[in-house]
Amino acid sequence: MSSLKTALAYDAVDTVTLNMAEAVGDTRLVVVCTPIGTFPAMFRAMAPHLPEGCIVTDVGSTKAHVVRLARKLLPPHARFVGSHPVAGSEKTGVEFARADLFQNAVCIVTPTARTDKAAVSDVVAFWDALGACTHTLSPSRHDAVLARVSHLPHAVACALVLLSQAGRSNAFAGPGFGDTTRIASGDPALWRDIFSTNRTATLAALRALERELARFRRAVASEDEKALETWLARAKSIREAWVAQRYARMDMEA
Amino acid sequence: MSSLKTALAYDAVDTVTLNMAEAVGDTRLVVVCTPIGTFPAMFRAMAPHLPEGCIVTDVGSTKAHVVRLARKLLPPHARFVGSHPVAGSEKTGVEFARADLFQNAVCIVTPTARTDKAAVSDVVAFWDALGACTHTLSPSRHDAVLARVSHLPHAVACALVLLSQAGRSNAFAGPGFGDTTRIASGDPALWRDIFSTNRTATLAALRALERELARFRRAVASEDEKALETWLARAKSIREAWVAQRYARMDMEA
Repeated sequence: MSSLKTALAYDAVDTVTLNMAEAVGDTRLVVVCTPIGTFPAMFRAMAPHLPEGCIVTDVGSTKAHVVRLARKLLPPHARFVGSHPVAGSEKTGVEFARADLFQNAVCIVTPTARTDKAAVSDVVAFWDALGACTHTLSPSRHDAVLARVSHLPHAVACALVLLSQAGRSNAFAGPGFGDTTRIASGDPALWRDIFSTNRTATLAALRALERELARFRRAVASEDEKALETWLARAKSIREAWVAQRYARMDMEA
Repeated sequence: MSSLKTALAYDAVDTVTLNMAEAVGDTRLVVVCTPIGTFPAMFRAMAPHLPEGCIVTDVGSTKAHVVRLARKLLPPHARFVGSHPVAGSEKTGVEFARADLFQNAVCIVTPTARTDKAAVSDVVAFWDALGACTHTLSPSRHDAVLARVSHLPHAVACALVLLSQAGRSNAFAGPGFGDTTRIASGDPALWRDIFSTNRTATLAALRALERELARFRRAVASEDEKALETWLARAKSIREAWVAQRYARMDMEA
């Protein structure tokens, strides 16, 4: 396959294989990095070959669904721990790989009450060793949080892009529009899987967005300039606190 | 005033003055670059001092309101032409000035039937000389277009930031969130003026966004994965066409 050849050419991997027994038969840690929609087939294919005590983790963007799948499809002697490194871009393919991708990135590890504690420590240590700031959250809390800060923003960016086509409005768009909608260039199949496996939290986040936009609409429609400015100033101050926190983390790590 | 001192220190200006007669009394082109909310006071203050045939333009982000103000407050012998260079960032202050700010930027000039044609040509030539790609649109068409590609995206970015604070969700946000919400750090007073002077088009764009998000919601809620993927793929392809067009323009100019 051409993607395997590319990965070798970029020196991104030491070896490649399409044989699952060969891939996982003699390993202590398996990191599943395919789209979530392929997880059932992946888990089924690797299940018979996973050695005793092997740890399996993943990089999927939703977690409750993935943790349920792993419990159902992986053998009990393989210790599954869900992971979600919040990193990457809208680009797909090894040619966009970056050695520092996880440096200072948030990474969320999602153990449940049944997850092996030593495996959780090892997975956290793995991500920390790659430079990430690793946190643990329950799978459902992860999904609620990511629906707000990643999944909903993706849907909104897509909606803004779709709107911008009317009357070729986007011919007049500037760099702000480019940044706000960057993530809309993400892979549709991958994002379909994310929304499909995080339905409830996505719809809840969408309702919360509509409530927030209703506040904005009321302020504009009623010509309440004070309320409008307060709303805008609150957003600015929350975002600036977020940026400051991010930079503080990066400086600390530098 | 400290901002005038900073502008001189950065060599961003040749001279500064707080005296309006001195500022505009002997000029062929006045470019008003203050927030839209200050335009009535600005226009009133400069009106008695504008020389015969002088051209006045501005960089305000809404145009129908500004063009109406100019018609009301500026003397007929001063030729007003509205401009909106779609450039700049969420940062405020001369310390964030860039010499290439207008290079390849879209700039919209908004003449009406009453606008002096020679003045329009001169204003277009002015922006083109700064490297911009200048287009002309009617003030109301400008406002409808910008509501979709700039004003609404700003409100949406603010709403996403406000949502992200619930349960400290934004502690887990990644670079995608950072880009999508960058513009929410813009100056609240400036944006209050933009929304206040482009109320109707902003509310219409918001309704269009809600219709678009309703399509997304239906696809997610009804588990229609095909419709969901089609919606996402349409957004990706429109955005990529937009990016390609932007880069083509930059290459052409380079």
